[in-house]
This record gives sequence, structure tokens and C-alpha cells, in this order.
Amino acid sequence: MVLEKIQKANDIKKLKPEELEVLAQEIRDFLIEKISVTGGHLASNLGVVELTMAMHLIFDLPEDKIIWDVGHQAYTHKLLTGRKAGFDDLRKYGGMSGFPKRKESDCDAFDTGHSSTSISAGLGYVEAREILGQDHKVISVIGDGAMTGGMAYEALNNAAGLKSNFIIVLNDNNMSISENVGGMSKYLDGLRTASAYTGLKKGVEAALGKLPYIGARVTGHIRKAKSGIKQLFVPGMFFEDMGITYLGPVDGHDLKALCRAFREAEKLQNAVLVHVITTKGKGYLPAEKYPSQFHGTGPFDIETGQAKEKAGEDSYTDVFSKVIYREAKKEPKLVAITAAMAGGTGLVPFSKTYRDRFFDVGIAEEHAVTFAAGLAAAGLKPVVAIYSSFLQRAYDQLIHDVCLQNLPVVFAIDRAGLVGSDGETHQGVFDLSFLSTIPNMTVMAPKNKWELADMLRFAIQYPGPVAVRYPRGTAYTGLEEFRAPIEYGKSEVIQTGEGIVLLSVGHMMETALQVSDSLRERGIQSTLVNSRFVKPVDEKLLEELSKLHTLYVTIEENVLAGGYGAQVLAYVEKKRLPVQVESFGIPDEYVEHGNIEVLRKEVMLDADTITERILSVYQKRQQE
Amino acid sequence: MVLEKIQKANDIKKLKPEELEVLAQEIRDFLIEKISVTGGHLASNLGVVELTMAMHLIFDLPEDKIIWDVGHQAYTHKLLTGRKAGFDDLRKYGGMSGFPKRKESDCDAFDTGHSSTSISAGLGYVEAREILGQDHKVISVIGDGAMTGGMAYEALNNAAGLKSNFIIVLNDNNMSISENVGGMSKYLDGLRTASAYTGLKKGVEAALGKLPYIGARVTGHIRKAKSGIKQLFVPGMFFEDMGITYLGPVDGHDLKALCRAFREAEKLQNAVLVHVITTKGKGYLPAEKYPSQFHGTGPFDIETGQAKEKAGEDSYTDVFSKVIYREAKKEPKLVAITAAMAGGTGLVPFSKTYRDRFFDVGIAEEHAVTFAAGLAAAGLKPVVAIYSSFLQRAYDQLIHDVCLQNLPVVFAIDRAGLVGSDGETHQGVFDLSFLSTIPNMTVMAPKNKWELADMLRFAIQYPGPVAVRYPRGTAYTGLEEFRAPIEYGKSEVIQTGEGIVLLSVGHMMETALQVSDSLRERGIQSTLVNSRFVKPVDEKLLEELSKLHTLYVTIEENVLAGGYGAQVLAYVEKKRLPVQVESFGIPDEYVEHGNIEVLRKEVMLDADTITERILSVYQKRQQE
Repeated sequence: MVLEKIQKANDIKKLKPEELEVLAQEIRDFLIEKISVTGGHLASNLGVVELTMAMHLIFDLPEDKIIWDVGHQAYTHKLLTGRKAGFDDLRKYGGMSGFPKRKESDCDAFDTGHSSTSISAGLGYVEAREILGQDHKVISVIGDGAMTGGMAYEALNNAAGLKSNFIIVLNDNNMSISENVGGMSKYLDGLRTASAYTGLKKGVEAALGKLPYIGARVTGHIRKAKSGIKQLFVPGMFFEDMGITYLGPVDGHDLKALCRAFREAEKLQNAVLVHVITTKGKGYLPAEKYPSQFHGTGPFDIETGQAKEKAGEDSYTDVFSKVIYREAKKEPKLVAITAAMAGGTGLVPFSKTYRDRFFDVGIAEEHAVTFAAGLAAAGLKPVVAIYSSFLQRAYDQLIHDVCLQNLPVVFAIDRAGLVGSDGETHQGVFDLSFLSTIPNMTVMAPKNKWELADMLRFAIQYPGPVAVRYPRGTAYTGLEEFRAPIEYGKSEVIQTGEGIVLLSVGHMMETALQVSDSLRERGIQSTLVNSRFVKPVDEKLLEELSKLHTLYVTIEENVLAGGYGAQVLAYVEKKRLPVQVESFGIPDEYVEHGNIEVLRKEVMLDADTITERILSVYQKRQQE
Repeated sequence: MVLEKIQKANDIKKLKPEELEVLAQEIRDFLIEKISVTGGHLASNLGVVELTMAMHLIFDLPEDKIIWDVGHQAYTHKLLTGRKAGFDDLRKYGGMSGFPKRKESDCDAFDTGHSSTSISAGLGYVEAREILGQDHKVISVIGDGAMTGGMAYEALNNAAGLKSNFIIVLNDNNMSISENVGGMSKYLDGLRTASAYTGLKKGVEAALGKLPYIGARVTGHIRKAKSGIKQLFVPGMFFEDMGITYLGPVDGHDLKALCRAFREAEKLQNAVLVHVITTKGKGYLPAEKYPSQFHGTGPFDIETGQAKEKAGEDSYTDVFSKVIYREAKKEPKLVAITAAMAGGTGLVPFSKTYRDRFFDVGIAEEHAVTFAAGLAAAGLKPVVAIYSSFLQRAYDQLIHDVCLQNLPVVFAIDRAGLVGSDGETHQGVFDLSFLSTIPNMTVMAPKNKWELADMLRFAIQYPGPVAVRYPRGTAYTGLEEFRAPIEYGKSEVIQTGEGIVLLSVGHMMETALQVSDSLRERGIQSTLVNSRFVKPVDEKLLEELSKLHTLYVTIEENVLAGGYGAQVLAYVEKKRLPVQVESFGIPDEYVEHGNIEVLRKEVMLDADTITERILSVYQKRQQE
């Protein structure tokens, strides 16, 4: 096997030319086989096999710096830098990350996970190289989907002025996670089909003399020509007019063409955009055909492409999906917005039936939120469906555009709490805190499937900004009988006892119930409360409960700083209630990838750890 | 006076053509006269007098929606919508805001303050209009400076697909607050000097028949022509290729040309970008000559243009400016980054001497932070100088790009706390909370001038991410003798007493000293602590102080939710220290514009209010 010869970075350079094609096939086979077992990102990785190989053939790692935008497409890069063995434990606790990690390899120049950051980070490396008098290459690899993110444009705008080499690889598969949207996509479309210009080009070429191919050489010759003439036969004029050399389009599965393009690109003393056309899922038919499905996948059958896991019970996402669909029928002013996550957030059914009321804005969370504010100001009822960790991008837009004007925008926050195998960058553990800082914002979290539906309906009729946050995974179906109507700011008492109150936020109810059972086994009948509202906290209930209880235990899957526990404690202290508050949540550290149950134990948010600590605190308190 | 005839929206339409030119002059005279007394934004407002008049002549308010990006250029709009009297109390507490406010007028369609939001909000209005079957115009007015913000591009990318009218006015004065940067600026430069294409254009025009002017008519004729041909004589091809009609450039001081352009623009069934060239400060020579100085100005002498306020003592910004300049000499790896605020943050001297180590990235806070992360990953020591309310834009980049990798980036956070006359959108009152949620982040705040210098030097040598936050205005020069070296995580005891500890954050020390004096007059010798570090809190000191004190009073100019007081309280509760914590900070509401001292009283952060409340709490506690 050729792949066996790759033990570390740059080993690929020792291969004979005829071995390279074999290697590409072996890498694809390896990735399909491994990911069919572990799950992971497949389609994007199959698309960049040759692109990654070409970069490793032309550049020297770790001296040269490759920065992968988003980073879920770095599997071939991991293989070519000696991390083959890591694929057995891919995205498992303690195992290899699904993203680039500087801790993992000195060939990973920058940690990524969210979209559209790579040009900014790459530009940092470039400017540092110049200041430090170093002499290496910096390459940022960004997908066309990530180009819908404003940050990428901010960075391009700055890269434009460079007077030293910076290679930006635009990996264009004409998709973000789902289909691509917007004007830039249309613009790139024009470039992709640049052969349409051929007739025109021919004439100009004749006039300027024979020029063998459209690319750096032609560009070089006519760089000083009038812009109007250049536009006739240089695609990518927008980039050129900004001051960025455009090379391409290049066939992203033609290794020789890629290597040639990189050799041209590295000669230039400015920012160069190499436009590479790839096919998502390349070489595995099911993934080519259904790239969205094979974007992030669980274990699957290689033969059929079918998922091995059964569909199973409804996830919280499914519940949101159904409710928003149903409510849309009743409420013609309801509109839905996603930032390139129609599939992940469950908006696909809505988008098909209510096409005119559905907006996929691309990977553009800032715009998504202010756009929603505009819709609301104009009298509609927008629902922004978004992952918790991506909403972090729109913190200022929440403060400045939505809440300042107290506009009725609903935020359906999916993937809140621990998300598991995607790791640090995707854990949704800050939302309760940052949302709680914002005046006029209301924050809710449902304990189970039915409550999510009830809260969404409540949110849709509420006349101000409101967030409902819920986690990844199967929706809890316990406590079906607890379905009292949602009342603004009111918590729900699940069981009454005395001494200890468990105040549980949203999906932590399952854990809280276990804790309650364990306490009962130890002879303590605790009161169990479903907080429902994180902002505002139910002050009246906190006051009432203080009559028969001395210990309030808050349980939330969110950082402790500024979270629900902090709000409860602030109120208890303000009112001098004679109770102790013990808060359980995520400590002040990043939580890595792994199975969610394992991670909960790791951060001490599992029922056993919570129970033990409560008992220790409670006993101590009773001795006081 | 013609201006007297304007009592409400649309009154301008009743004027005779010959009165319009007089009106423009009267508006300029009025603005110069008023702002020379109250202070405010001048240069940008003088630049858009004719532009605003043209919009009010062509469009109908409040049915049509005008959305002002940033919004500090809406003074003429305020005049033309019956708010002339408001200019006497401009930006004063209870008076007229310096920004658009829906509360102030139904002609203000959307509240703004931060940059690059107007196209997103406008697009929301447009889509809502279509869904609601309405028939009005939506116009977003955005400066070329704001076009360096990624959000604007995200929105443009989405506007590109529109099949109904949306007018985007690009108010191009070739400046952001200071000089403009980047590739987009270069691209627009090309458009501005589109007459360079004239020779080429002529030939093509001849071929296509006589076409009277470059603009909508030509565009209409050749819309279906091959892109390559169009590029020969339609400027703004990038916008056109995205799917946005480009009209212009239009002379922004030629009322007739503007009206003609808007009449053309409103006919089209898609997004239209009207490129208007204006001169910042137009009509007032000192402002034309020094537009940055007259961007936001205090009272000035109209004759000379000189500021009426004396330069006075050093502001915190001045201190930062000097320290960063001096440290740069010692530390060649020190680099500085600003997002279009070189003047405001005090980076001008640095930028002049250390040109290669200075980066103005445009109004692009997200990029600024991740770019800094890249610089740090490559071995440099970047300092990001930024206003508190603008850093909100980069919350995710702090979490995802800087702190996850524990990169040594220094954040010099200016305008932290209440900022005064700019109001709600600019108050820097969230930073202590959102920064405290982030693992690996260190947060400091200086009590006075010298401590800011010491903290900055400490931060520059610290091997992880660290923020130093300080307010607008004159740096406090009291407590000069308290200058013990900064130790990581350690607070500073200013005076010792018993019973009550005042824990003051940063510049609230002045207030804390007054409180301490008032308490002394009432016979209470309190202990006074300068917290220095907000994250981490000085746990050891909190523990020690609990021996001789029963009341901890925290004082910070930040929202209470998740702030310093919340961190102190969490520790006190965790350790069951036998003390009560009383927290003073900004309550859960937006704080409007006005004099900072007045605002402090309003939010109950003044020494009198704090003292009274402490006394009441302390007496109650002693009775317990």
C-alpha cells in the first residue's frame, strides 16, 4: 500500500509520480472505510484529496503554514502528517479531533471550527512573517460556502494591500453545508463557467500574441493593461480590482494542474486567490449524490450509503421542525431564517412549503440577526433557527439591533449545551450567560419534547425578543404529564419536598430526576423545579421556597459564570433569603470532543457527582 | 428663512425649486451654528445635506423607509422631519439623540449606532413589504467606510437575489472616520475615476447607438449583453455580476442629479446600488480640511474651527497612546491593531513611527480579533485597541480564535463603562460580563492614570489573552502613591478598616473614595480595595477580609448580570464566607445619552446613592 509509506509530513514528496494516483484512491478508500465506522465529516474530505496532496507536494510542513477554514475537511491533511492511526478514535473522548489542533501536530497552524476565519488568521501569519523576517509560505484554504461570511470579506479587503506572498485557496464546490446562496455564489458561478468567455478571449489573445493558458502567465502580461481590457479575458476581475491576483479556475481533481497553479502562486509578491473547483463527495457515489447527507455523518453501510443508526425517536430539532411548520400555517406573519443550516436546524419542511417566508442567508449570523430585526420592525414575526455556538457571532446584533428596539424576534437555539464529538469550538455553553446580560431579552429552556413545542408557541406570540434553547439529540419524553401552560417568568414545580430544592434548567431535567431519586434513596425528599425561564428568574418562587428549604441546587449545561445559577444566587443575596445556593454547570475551561455522557462526567455534571456533592454540602450545612 | 417652512416630513416638497439651494445653505449654517455650541457629529452631516434633501424630495415619509447606517449623519433628516427645536438639547440627557430613534419619530425606521447594519435591516423591511403585500420604498444609506464591515457584505450578498426594489445608497466620501483602507476602497476608487474609461466607452457606445449618459438607461440596454462587453463601460461590474444594479457615480452635491438617480433607481425590480460621491465637511472649510477632527466634535469657534475646550489633562486614551508608543521601542514584537479608530484609541503616534507594525483593518472588528490571533500564533505580541461596545462584535472570535488557543493577545478596551452623549448603542457596559465567560481570559481595570500604564506593561509581557478596560475621559490622578507592582490575580488594598469592604473596579475608584469618605463621616472606617483583576477575582483576599468584615460592596460600571459583583458573590457563596455581598452596577436596562455624571445618578451609581444604600443595608445587618 502506498499509504503505508506516508509516516510523517513531506513523506509524500518521496513517492514516484505513478504512485500519487494510487495514493489518492487509497486515501479515499481509507476515509470511507474509517468514517463508515466512526462517523465524521465525509463529503468535504473526499472533495479535497488531490487539493491537499498538491499542497503537501509543493509546500514544506511545518515551516509553511496551511490554515483550514472551518477545518472539518482536514482529514487528508491529518493522514499526510502521520496521523493515520488516529482515525480509529476519531472524535472520541481522548482521541483525535475532527478539526485541526495545534496541540495535535505542529503541521496544524491554527485551530478552527467555525467558518470564515482562515483568511484573517492567515493574514496574521503573513504579516508576522514579514515583521520577523522569515521566509515561508502561508496558505489559507476556504470553501465557497465560507465566503458568504462577512469576516472572510473583511480579511480579503485587508489582504488586498499585501506586498508579499499570501495564497488563498478558494475551494469551490458550489455548496456550503447545504446549497449555496447569494450574489457571491452567482459571481463565482460566472467564473466557474469562464469558458463562456472563450470566444472573446481568443481574439484578444491573438492580438497580444500566443498565450498558452489562462492563468498567471496571461495575468502577468496584462497586469498593467487598462482594466477595461483585462476584464475581457481575466476572470475574477473583482479580486483583481481589489488588488488580489486571481488564478483559475483550476480542476481540483487534477493533481498536475493544482501543482502548477501553486507553483505559479508562490512566485507572486502579493495576495493570490487560487480558484479550485472540486466535487463534494468525490469518488463515493452516495456522497457525490447527497453531499449534504454526507457532510457530517454517523456510521453508515458503505455498499448502500444507508445510515446504520435507526432514525429513532424525535430529536429536539425534529420537534422544532414540526412546530414551526404547523405554526406557519396558523400565523401568516411567521417567517424563518437560517444561516446555512436549514438541514441541521430542521427548517427543510418549512422551506419547501413556505418558500417565500423562508430565508437561508448563508453562513452569515450577524446579518441573519439584524435582518430578522428589520423583518420584525416591519411587522413580521421572525424565527431565527441557529446553533448556540454560532449565535455567539451575533452578540452585538442581539444587543444593538434586536433588544435595544425590543423587537419580537424568536431565537430557536439548537445544539445548546454539550454537543459531543465536534468538540471545543461547537459546545453551546455560553448562551445562557451572554443572553442574560442583554436588557429586554427573555430566555427559556424546555425540559422535554412537549415543553419545547409549548415554549415555541409561547415565544411566537410574545411581543419582545425571546430565546428558546435546546440541545442536540433525542428529545426527552419523560414527565409528559407536566404540561401546565407556559406563564411568563414562571417556573414549574415537578415535585415538592423540603430542605433541598433542585432547580433544573431545560434538558438537565433528566439528570435532576436521577439526582432526586438518589437523594430519595438516602432519605431526602427534595423539591424539584423546572426553571423554564432563565431570564427573568422566577423571583416569587425563589422567595416562597425559602420557607421550607435551606439549600438551592441549580443545574445547567452552561458555563457557571453569568449563568442561571448566578442569577438565582444574585436574587437570593439581594433578598437575603436564608438559603445556600450550590451551582452546577460547566467550569471555566474549554470542553473537548467526546461522547456527551462521558463529557458530563468529566465536567462533574453527571447525576452521581451532583448527588455526592449535594449530600456533602447538605450534611455540612445541617451541622452548622 | 426657508428652513422655517419645514415643520414636518414632506414639507420640503412644497418649496419652489429656487428655494432648495437656499435651504441647503441654511441647513449647513444651522448645523454649524448649533454643533459649534452643543458639540456633535459635524463633517458627516455637512456631507449629506443635498443627499438627504433629494431623498426627502423623491420619497414619502414615513411610508417609505430610510435606514441610516451608523446614524450619526441623520441631522439633516431630523431637520426635515420637524425636529429643529431638538438641536438645542442635542445629545443631552432627556434631549434629542444624535442617532435615529424610532421613539423619536415615525420617520426613523430603524435605530442605529454601530456600523454596517443598514443593508441587513433594510433587506428585512423589503422582504416584509413583499410578504405583507405593501408598496413602499426602502432605502439604506451606507458610507464607504461601513462597507469595510463584513456584515454589509453578508447583506449585499443576500440583497443580490432580490426581485423587488431595494435602494442602497453608497455615500462615498472616501473615508471612514479616519482614512479608508483595503481592497474595497481601491475598487471604489476605480469607480470614482470612471471617466478614465471614457475613451473605451465612446467606441462601444458608437457601436450600440447613441446613449446619452452612463447610468440606468445604458445599463438597461446592455443588461443582457455578454458580461465581458458590459465590463467595458459599466462601472461597478462586481455589483452587477452579483445581481445588483449599479447606478453612478453621482455627484452628491448636485441635487438635480441625485433626484434623477433616485427616480431611475425606484423603477427597478431588484436591488440597486446608487453610488453617490460626497465631500465630508462640505461647505465648512475647517471640516473639509480636517474631516476626522470634525467627525465628532465638542464645541468650537466657528470663525477659526478651534475647539473651545482646552486640551486639559491626559485622558486614559492619552495614557494608552504614550505607553504603547514607548513599549514598542523596547519590544520589537509589539504590533498594534485598530478597526478604523486610530484617532479615537490613541494609536496615531504609534502608527506614524512604527508603520510596519501598525494595522488599521477598517471597520472590521471580527477580522481584527482573529487577525490578532494569527499574529500571536506566529510569535508576535499584538495589542488590539478597541472600544468596549465594538468588541461585542468579536465575542465569538475571542472565544474561538484567541482564548481557545490561549494566544497572547492584549485587548486595550477604551470607552468602557458609560460613554455619555453617544447613548445606548455606545455604552461600554457589557465587557466585564462577556469577557468573564471566556476560559483563559484575564480581565483588568485600572484605578488611575499610572495604573493603566502599569497594567498595559503587565499585559504586554503576559503569556495569554488579557484585557485592560478603561473609560472615556480624563484619567484619574488621585492615589498616585499607590503603585505596588501588578501581581497576577491580586487586588490592592487602599485603606484598611473593618465591617465594610468597598471593592471597586477600575475608574469607579473615584466614586468609591467619596463613598469611603461619606462613611467615615458617619463613623464607619471601611476597608477600600482596588480590585485590579476582574477575572480571576482575588480569592485569597476575599477569604482573608471575611475575618474582620461582614459586608462586601462591589462597585463597577458594567451590567450587574455576570459582572465583577457576580464573580465575588459566587466565590463568597462557594466558600460560605460569612459576609453579605451588595453589588452596585448598571441595572438590566439600556442607558440613554447624556452627561456621564447625570447618567450615574440615574442608574444609582453615584456616591450619594451608594452610600445611602450601604448604610441602610449595614444597619439592617447589624440588627440581624
